[in-house]
Amino acid sequence: MEVINRYVTVKTQINGEPKESDFEIKSTPLVLSAEPGSNDVVLKNLYVSIDPYQINRLKAFSSTQKTSGYATAITPGQVIDAYGVAKVVASGNPEFEKDDLVVGMITWGEYSVLTGQYMLRKLDPMGFPLSYHVGIFAFSGLTAYAGFFEVCKPKKGEKVFVSAASGSIGHLVGQYAKQFGCYVVGCAGSKEKVALLKDKLGFDDAFNYKDEPDLKSALKKYFPEGIDIYFDNVGGEMLEAAVSNMNTFGRIAACGVISEYTDSSKRAAPDMLEIVYKRITIRGFLTADFMNLYPDFLSATVDHLRTGTLHTLEDISTGLESIPQAFIGLFHGGNVGKKIVKLGDE
Amino acid sequence: MEVINRYVTVKTQINGEPKESDFEIKSTPLVLSAEPGSNDVVLKNLYVSIDPYQINRLKAFSSTQKTSGYATAITPGQVIDAYGVAKVVASGNPEFEKDDLVVGMITWGEYSVLTGQYMLRKLDPMGFPLSYHVGIFAFSGLTAYAGFFEVCKPKKGEKVFVSAASGSIGHLVGQYAKQFGCYVVGCAGSKEKVALLKDKLGFDDAFNYKDEPDLKSALKKYFPEGIDIYFDNVGGEMLEAAVSNMNTFGRIAACGVISEYTDSSKRAAPDMLEIVYKRITIRGFLTADFMNLYPDFLSATVDHLRTGTLHTLEDISTGLESIPQAFIGLFHGGNVGKKIVKLGDE
Repeated sequence: MEVINRYVTVKTQINGEPKESDFEIKSTPLVLSAEPGSNDVVLKNLYVSIDPYQINRLKAFSSTQKTSGYATAITPGQVIDAYGVAKVVASGNPEFEKDDLVVGMITWGEYSVLTGQYMLRKLDPMGFPLSYHVGIFAFSGLTAYAGFFEVCKPKKGEKVFVSAASGSIGHLVGQYAKQFGCYVVGCAGSKEKVALLKDKLGFDDAFNYKDEPDLKSALKKYFPEGIDIYFDNVGGEMLEAAVSNMNTFGRIAACGVISEYTDSSKRAAPDMLEIVYKRITIRGFLTADFMNLYPDFLSATVDHLRTGTLHTLEDISTGLESIPQAFIGLFHGGNVGKKIVKLGDE
Repeated sequence: MEVINRYVTVKTQINGEPKESDFEIKSTPLVLSAEPGSNDVVLKNLYVSIDPYQINRLKAFSSTQKTSGYATAITPGQVIDAYGVAKVVASGNPEFEKDDLVVGMITWGEYSVLTGQYMLRKLDPMGFPLSYHVGIFAFSGLTAYAGFFEVCKPKKGEKVFVSAASGSIGHLVGQYAKQFGCYVVGCAGSKEKVALLKDKLGFDDAFNYKDEPDLKSALKKYFPEGIDIYFDNVGGEMLEAAVSNMNTFGRIAACGVISEYTDSSKRAAPDMLEIVYKRITIRGFLTADFMNLYPDFLSATVDHLRTGTLHTLEDISTGLESIPQAFIGLFHGGNVGKKIVKLGDE
C-alpha cells in the first residue's frame, strides 16, 4: 500500500526567533512495507513532542553542538526527528510487529521510516493516556526528577525557585520539590499560569515575571530568607537575579536556557563574586546522563499519578499543520505544560 | 613602655582601582603592656599578607559581603586586619607568652593590639622562613590544595588550565596538578612570568594573555583536546573563553575574580548553552570551608618542599610604607607569587 507522507521541515537555517515562514510541509510517496530482515520499521505517528531544544538543531550552528554529540544539526529540507509515540505499520525488525505501540525517536511527520540505528521500544501504556509517554513518562519527567534530586541534591525545608514553572519540566520540578518537603516558588509569564501553579499544583507561591520591573527585588520579596536551590530553565536575567538571592552553598541546576536560544545577546552575566563568596554551584546537565534513574523515577511517578498527588499539564494541538505554531509558541510562552502534537488516532 | 604605632588605613571607600591617594599612614601612641587576665595581646608584626580580596572590604559595599560573613567591611580610618606572623610583646592571655612567635589575623601596622575574640595560634616555623607561614603554609597554599583536589576532583591525565598562574595561588595549583599527573597550562601577564612557569615550575606550557588578541583561540591552541579543569582566579573574559574550550563534564573552580573586583562592567557572561550541553560545573569556594584538610595539606606540602619538588614564589617588600603600593600592584600584575610585606625583624 502506498500513501503520501507529509512532514514538517525548515526551508533554511533559523535565525533568531522561529517564524511560520521558516517552515514548510513536504509530501513524499511512501510504501507501507519493510523488507524482511532489513531492520527497517515504518510507523504511523500518533503523538510527537515539541521541545525548545530543537531550535539549537535548526539554527546556524555553533561548535558546541557539533562536538557535544547532542542536538545534532538538521539540514534544511531534512526530516526532523523528535520523541514520540507511534504504531507499527510494517516491520523488518523481529522485535516489532504490525500494530505494536512504540515510543522513541520518530519524526515531525505523519509517518516515520526508521532505518539503520534508531531508538525505539515497545510501549506498555500502563493504563495512562498515550500522550503521557511523550511527556511525563519521557524526557520531561526524567529531567525534572533527575535534575531536582540528583543535580540539586535537596534537603527538606530548603527554599526552591523554579523558572518557566508552568512549562513541561518546571511544573513537575515544583511538585516533586513540594512532595519532598521544600518551600517552592515558581515564576511564569501570565496571570493564568500563576494561578495554576498556586491553585492546582500546590506551589507555595508564584509570580508573573512580566509584572516585575526588577527581578532581583521580586526574588527578594518571594524569598526573604534566600534561595537554596534554583532550577533554571531560562538563563539570562533571571539567572543573574537568582544568583544575587542565593544562600550560601546554593545550587543551580542549569537545565535549559530558553531566553538565550534565540538571542545570544541576552546572555547571563551572574556576579562571580557572589558565586565565590556564597560558594554557589552552577551545574549544567543533560537527562541522557541519568537514564539509570529511569526505573526509580517511573515507579515514583506512576504512584503519585495514581494517588492523585501529582498533576501533569499537557498542551496538545492536533494535526501535522499545527507543528510550526506549536514550536514557535514555545518561545512566547504559548504552552501550558508539555507541548505535544497529536498526529493520528490509535 | 610606650611606642608610636604606625598603621595603614584608607581615607575613604575605594572606588574602582585602588590608588596611592586612597591610603594614609596613621600614628597612635601605644603602651606595650596587657592587663593580666584580660585576654588582650600586643604583637610586634613581622610579616603581613597582601591579598586582592581586601579590595572587597575597602570598596563601596554590596549586600553579598554584608551577609556572607566573609570580607566584612572596613570603615575608612579603621585599622585593617590581615593574616600575618608576629611576635608577642605583651599578653594577658595565658596561652601566649612574651617573645612567642604567632600566626593569625594581625594588622597592616607595626604593632597589633588584639582584644576580644581573635584568630591567633603559636607558630612552629619547622625550619622554614617565617614568610612561608604567611603564604604557602597559610591560605594561599590551602586554597590551591583544597581548590584543586576537593573542588576540581582531578583525574590523572586530565588537562588543567590555571589563570593568574604566577600568582600566590596559581603557581601552587599548577605544581600540585603536575605532581598529580595532569597536563597543565598557565597564563600570566608578562614574558618573565611565562618563562618562570615553564622553566622553574614545570608547567607543560604557559602563555602571556596580553599577547593574545582572542582568548578563545589562544586556549584552543594550547588545549587542542579541550580543558577538563579550569582553576579560575580571574573571572571576566578568560572565564568565557575557558567555558567555550571546556570538555564535557568539565569542572571550573571559581577561586577569585580579580578582573571584576575593581570593574564590575567586566563581568563574565559564560555561554550557558555550552554549560548545559557540556554538563559543566562552576563551583565557587572559600578556603575556610576546607580547614579539615589542613593537616593533609601541610604534611604533603612540607614533604614536597623538603624534597625540592615544589617551589614557592614570594614577592616581599619591606616596611610599612610599602603596603599601599604592594596592594595596588596586585591589580596590575605587579607581584610574582605571594605578595608579603616584611614589617620587622624577629
